[in-house]
Order: sequence, then structure tokens, then C-alpha cells
Amino acid sequence: MTAFTRVRVRYAETDQMGVVYYANYFVWFEIGRTELLRTLGGSYRELEASGVFLPVIDTACRYLQSSRYDDELEIRTEGQLISAIRVRFDYTVTRLADQVTTAQGYTVHAALSPRGRACRLPDHIRTALA
Amino acid sequence: MTAFTRVRVRYAETDQMGVVYYANYFVWFEIGRTELLRTLGGSYRELEASGVFLPVIDTACRYLQSSRYDDELEIRTEGQLISAIRVRFDYTVTRLADQVTTAQGYTVHAALSPRGRACRLPDHIRTALA
Amino acid sequence: MTAFTRVRVRYAETDQMGVVYYANYFVWFEIGRTELLRTLGGSYRELEASGVFLPVIDTACRYLQSSRYDDELEIRTEGQLISAIRVRFDYTVTRLADQVTTAQGYTVHAALSPRGRACRLPDHIRTALA
Amino acid sequence: MTAFTRVRVRYAETDQMGVVYYANYFVWFEIGRTELLRTLGGSYRELEASGVFLPVIDTACRYLQSSRYDDELEIRTEGQLISAIRVRFDYTVTRLADQVTTAQGYTVHAALSPRGRACRLPDHIRTALA
Repeated sequence: MTAFTRVRVRYAETDQMGVVYYANYFVWFEIGRTELLRTLGGSYRELEASGVFLPVIDTACRYLQSSRYDDELEIRTEGQLISAIRVRFDYTVTRLADQVTTAQGYTVHAALSPRGRACRLPDHIRTALA
Repeated sequence: MTAFTRVRVRYAETDQMGVVYYANYFVWFEIGRTELLRTLGGSYRELEASGVFLPVIDTACRYLQSSRYDDELEIRTEGQLISAIRVRFDYTVTRLADQVTTAQGYTVHAALSPRGRACRLPDHIRTALA
Repeated sequence: MTAFTRVRVRYAETDQMGVVYYANYFVWFEIGRTELLRTLGGSYRELEASGVFLPVIDTACRYLQSSRYDDELEIRTEGQLISAIRVRFDYTVTRLADQVTTAQGYTVHAALSPRGRACRLPDHIRTALA
Repeated sequence: MTAFTRVRVRYAETDQMGVVYYANYFVWFEIGRTELLRTLGGSYRELEASGVFLPVIDTACRYLQSSRYDDELEIRTEGQLISAIRVRFDYTVTRLADQVTTAQGYTVHAALSPRGRACRLPDHIRTALA
């Protein structure tokens, strides 16, 4: 299961090196997995409303090329079930103008109840990402 | 009632103009009022735990001089009761190296219950900021 | 001259009150004016490349209703020339689902050369926003 | 070579889950390495002024416990030379109140000239982190 999302780099996301500050890629990853979950038939907002939270427990990013202000980027997100209570998303960020990959990363999430207990991912997510 | 707090400018807070991105001053204002409330005898964390939230309903900032990466700044915060359910904070940001004022601003806050109803500010805040 | 832009609220933009952190509206204002400038026939990126910077010197925002995670919002931006070297943008943020106005604000900008000297705004901007 | 730095969690750094948004740990890592470099006898600001930039090329973080608003945290940073042109920093974030480790991560940096060419790290850094 794969989702494609687009973002345009905000001035707020740049730093004095003239490129995107490295922590902001993780915000784009969030946008990518939000859209992937939406395509599975239920938004992450609805997931939380139903009592399932997906905090990040592990993440990484490799930076291959700089992204710059006003660049249009595409975030390619793939989801993969690790277990009944864990899911992993892989991200590739591509600059649309020249199709160069600027960064690659992943996040791993644990499904938690509102009280912070491990809980099973909903059926529709487990089926789609198995 | 006045509080003085120090921050050092983070790289994350700069933008490609080589100075601090304008929205970040409002984060420093938050640090200023957090410290002012702490000096009144109870943290904002405790205030929320007691069921009183202080969302911002109005804010402004004038920018006089740029702040730059690694600058040490002092935030001077003054609080003032507007009514039993509203409070205003005024902020002055000063660069420590040369005592230049870089920005001035304010925030106005409404006291709300967890359900979003207007509620009275706690006695110790009303007394201190009257 | 008016521009309309849409944003979807990011999880990163919320805070523990469950709504959007107040400083983030200023980032959306930036997106609004970026799009307005683009409709005038030249991006802000090109403006900087041509040696004209538009730092914010004054801003304000009134918060009328909370914005929440995953809300779709529309930013209405109007530009207005104040002088040959200053420009003002006014913003209205509307929640698309129910057409409620969530916030209103403005920014005032000074046109500066790369060395920080006041300079005239380009002709096409002065003509369009006069 | 090890540096210890303290931060207090800002309200802006929380999200609607009531804990710190995951991308913000990377901002704290930046604060940690900034202070480590300062103890080596020259600030990162001075390093950039001398023509050496240290963009991040690889990073990761594991989240062990949540951090919450107003928590005081200690960032332990260790630096290590990978080659004459690359350096790695390892970070451990500890909650001061109970000495619990909340997150661990690292960043790898390439030394670049202002034109983006690989360049040698300054002698005092290579000596200290060898």
C-alpha cells in the first residue's frame, strides 16, 4: 500500500544555511502517513477518536540532497505491519522539478490505548498492511 | 509583577534570511509568561491540572532589530489583570550582548474550563496581577 | 488583490490543549502572502533572488475559534501598499467544513536590500497593490 | 568528549497526545551538539563564520518514554570523529525529576565549504573528537 502526497517548502521550514532544517522532514513524514491511513478507509483523527493512538517509537532519516524554500516535493509513503500492535512506514521525499530524491526515512509506531496500554491495530489497517 | 527569562537562539529558529523567523517570538513569549506564572506561586502546568486553561485570544508583535543564531536574549514579561476572566502579558525581548530591544509584543488570554466555558482566574493570580 | 490558499492542519501544529498552537497561524499567514505574491506575476523566491527582502516588522492575530488537527482551512489574503517601501497583508482563516472564521490577522513588511537598506518595492507589486 | 545541557519542555513542543511531538527531539539534539562544540573552544556560529558548515546527513532517534510540558530534561552529547570530513554525535535525553532516559539518538554531519564542497574539519575539533 503506497500513498503519494505533495508539500511546498515553507519559509518557516528553512534555516540560515538556506535549506530546510533537518527536523522538518519528520513533519512531512507525518503528512505522508496521515494520507496513507486516509486511503485505507479511516483517518488518523478517527483512529484516535476510536481510542487507538500511534506514537512514534523509532525513526531515522538520511539526507541526500538539500530541499529549498518554495520547492515542490512529493512524499511517497509505504506501510507495513510489523506485528498486531506495531506498524512501520517508509518514506521517500522527491523534488518534483527534477525528480531527485532528497531524503529517505522511516517511522515505527506502537498502537496504544488512551491509557497508554499496548493494543491491537484495527482490522482494516492490519488487513491492508499485512 | 515582572519576570525575566533568558533564551539562546536555536538554529531551528532561524530562516534563510539569516535571522529568527518571526513566528518564533511568540514561542519565547510563552516561555516568558510561563516563568511569570511560576513566580506567582504555581506553574501553568498546575493551573491546567486544576482545570483552568489560558488560551491566547489576541496577540501582536513589533520587530525592531533582528535576532540571530546563538544570540542570548532576555524576555521581560509583565502581567496585568483585564477582568476576573482575562489577563494580558506584555513582553520585551532584549539582546544581552548590547542591550538592544529586538521586539515588543503582548498576548491576551481568556480563562477557560476544560469544557471551554469562561471561568474565573485563580485568586492568587487575580491578587498578584490586579 | 486577493488570494485564497488551503492548508490542512498538521499534527505537529497542535499542542496539548488539543488545538492549534497560536504561533502556527503566522506560518499560515506566510503561505497566504506567498501565494498572493505568486499571483502578482513573480514568486517571493524570485523577489529575494532579485535582491529584495520583505521581513515582517509588525504583526497581530485575533483568535476567534479553535482550529483542530486535520481541519481543512482556507487563508484569504489581501495586499495593500502602505508606501513605496512598505506593504501590508490582511489574513482571514476560515474552516472549510462550516465556513467559520477561526482567526484574523495582518503583517506589515519593509522592503530591504541584501545589505539591510530600505529599498523600493518592484513596480509590478506597487502597481498591483496600490 | 561529553557535554551536558538542560532544556525545559515548551508548550509549543507538545502535541494533542499531551506529550512532546517526536520531531522536536532533533531540535534538542542541535542544542546538545552546539554546547559540545562550544566546550571544544569555538562556537558553531564561529565555525560557520570561518567557512565550515556541518549539515546533518543521517539521523535517528528511539523514543523510550514520553516527555511532557514543563519537564526539565538533560541532553548528554558525545562527539566522535568518523573521518577528517565527518563527525558523529550521540545523544541521550534524561528526565531530571526521576533520571529516566526518554530518548536516544545520533546525528552524522559532513563538513562542507560555503559552496557545498567537502572540506576538512578544523584541527581543534579533529584533535578533540579523535
